[in-house]
Amino acid sequence: MNKRLEKVAAWLRERQIDAAFIHSPQNVYYLTGFSCHPHERLFGLFVFPQAEPFLVLPLLEEERAREAGWTGDIVACDDAENPWVRVRERLHHRGLKQAANLAVEKVSLPVVRAEQLLRLLPGAELVSADEWLTGLRLIKDERELDRMREAARLADIAVQTGIDSLAEGVSELEVLARIELEMKKRGVRDMAFSTMVLFGENTAHPHSVPGTRRLKKGDLVLFDLGVMLDGYCSDITRTVAFGEPNREQRLIYETVLKAQTKAVEACRPGTRLGDLDRMARDIIREAGFGKYFTHRLGHGLGIDVHEPPSIHGENDDLLKPGMVFTVEPGIYVPGVGGVRIEDDVCVTENEPEVLTGFPKELLIV
Amino acid sequence: MNKRLEKVAAWLRERQIDAAFIHSPQNVYYLTGFSCHPHERLFGLFVFPQAEPFLVLPLLEEERAREAGWTGDIVACDDAENPWVRVRERLHHRGLKQAANLAVEKVSLPVVRAEQLLRLLPGAELVSADEWLTGLRLIKDERELDRMREAARLADIAVQTGIDSLAEGVSELEVLARIELEMKKRGVRDMAFSTMVLFGENTAHPHSVPGTRRLKKGDLVLFDLGVMLDGYCSDITRTVAFGEPNREQRLIYETVLKAQTKAVEACRPGTRLGDLDRMARDIIREAGFGKYFTHRLGHGLGIDVHEPPSIHGENDDLLKPGMVFTVEPGIYVPGVGGVRIEDDVCVTENEPEVLTGFPKELLIV
Repeated sequence: MNKRLEKVAAWLRERQIDAAFIHSPQNVYYLTGFSCHPHERLFGLFVFPQAEPFLVLPLLEEERAREAGWTGDIVACDDAENPWVRVRERLHHRGLKQAANLAVEKVSLPVVRAEQLLRLLPGAELVSADEWLTGLRLIKDERELDRMREAARLADIAVQTGIDSLAEGVSELEVLARIELEMKKRGVRDMAFSTMVLFGENTAHPHSVPGTRRLKKGDLVLFDLGVMLDGYCSDITRTVAFGEPNREQRLIYETVLKAQTKAVEACRPGTRLGDLDRMARDIIREAGFGKYFTHRLGHGLGIDVHEPPSIHGENDDLLKPGMVFTVEPGIYVPGVGGVRIEDDVCVTENEPEVLTGFPKELLIV
Repeated sequence: MNKRLEKVAAWLRERQIDAAFIHSPQNVYYLTGFSCHPHERLFGLFVFPQAEPFLVLPLLEEERAREAGWTGDIVACDDAENPWVRVRERLHHRGLKQAANLAVEKVSLPVVRAEQLLRLLPGAELVSADEWLTGLRLIKDERELDRMREAARLADIAVQTGIDSLAEGVSELEVLARIELEMKKRGVRDMAFSTMVLFGENTAHPHSVPGTRRLKKGDLVLFDLGVMLDGYCSDITRTVAFGEPNREQRLIYETVLKAQTKAVEACRPGTRLGDLDRMARDIIREAGFGKYFTHRLGHGLGIDVHEPPSIHGENDDLLKPGMVFTVEPGIYVPGVGGVRIEDDVCVTENEPEVLTGFPKELLIV
């Protein structure tokens, strides 16, 4: 067993939990190094206080699990059989015919999986493993940070590629495709989420969808993108002006930049997470744009592109070294346009380490 | 209420269920036309036997829901508030302070959401809406089929683009990027799943990951890809030879083609789904490759790239007009290479309609 799995087993012993079923691909990847997207097929990792853990997976994933370095037990099921029958056998082999409690990821485990588990182990109480697993993943180690630094470096390059592709008449999707082509040339298989390239009025909504809108002078251009590298995500937003921005666009940009810079600088151990959101929001409110900042300041980043901590005003948790999250205030004024500036920030013992490095002064293309 | 929502309400009345909470973005899209990917934020649709349905969604999605045509009630929550408090109010407004039963999607609803629901309506029994919703989505109407035809037509173009990009020394990811660039130029925002372009030995595993492997003479090249168009997926696989294939590669190709053609021709109303898998598998087994066909014959296709029906040997359901699914036998011989051929097939009253149209004879590039 690797160290992370040993931590799970120790936690089960300490909490006197009979077994854990970890089914989210992200947590299984964190605990085993094996990345799998099983669609509707049964996939997961059983961990026990004492006995050997095992993976249950579709037959056609078995070889990849071995290649990823999993040397432990595997229950590999073909599409025509009921994998729960095989799981039951394995549980019985490990002496588990009934259980008082079972740790599961309540945040993601579907009800039907929970019911199937409880059919194998009737009467067991489901205990949430979410908070504990979140705590485990919340503080990134050096190996994780190295991947995230590299993912952020690639995101910087992606933004530069996007800016280099801007020309009058080009469409949002064309620029988006050029960015992703450049990333693929550099060996990136998957973006961390649907890449966003927005022009003009489309920037005025934080969740617009890129389309065939063509670029024209006077447009703001918003890039929100990230790459997935060895299972870890980056997430950057930059907004640039195509042609000379007007007075209001400039004011919006400077306000967002001031709010973002202020919040990033405050990312030090002991700061209350909610205060980060509030200090950015105060600056935006004081500039008269309060009602146009319609989302939280940021979100944790790692194996998931959205993971704890959530950076909103009501979050009373305190920053700790090793936390990584986005800081991304935005102002979206219908009819005028939107600006968002987003960095990935890692809390250290001292100054925050900003993983994304693309310049933030207003760039006029 | 639109017709699909009326069907849900009628089903609730018929089954005497007090309310349904539909939370999967796919089913909400099917029922409302509004597509939303809320990450960890609460999102869903409450439907009642008599009262007006409502959407609960993150504040920053409200405008998009309106743009998508949702004219009904909305509970829009910002990131700092507890959306369940607002949901409780709405349920109370509709006179629902307690419930005997609640329909949910057990296949996808996370345990934590179920627990939150049950805290609002203590003692309610959760009833699965999965099978009924699946039945509703299983038979595609003409409007859905039109989208799927167009998505399949784009997938054909994507395969042609991939073939046109083949040249000695090009990498898998470069070809993949060219395909996706072409799709974006045609207005496709998202592929239906991670595009697969595999060369040589990488084709010998059905779930390999494209990388920096460079193309050389004698390689088989496998494309598995699809696009998402207006919320509907296509999914095609073609395998071509780069340079003259050897005898075994030819034999594998001809065997897969024979199995695939036979199964597609059998896609008529009343055929048992499991028999489709078996007739393809028999051909492959008789040619001596039985153990190298390691997955089911195919899967349903629609809003999800994998949805019911599952085409495996044990499925006793019968084909009905309007069902759409993939037919994709494959043979994967380690050290030699793999071949898979996949079409999207729609069952009609008569001949099956094959949505994907790219030629299937062995193409030597």
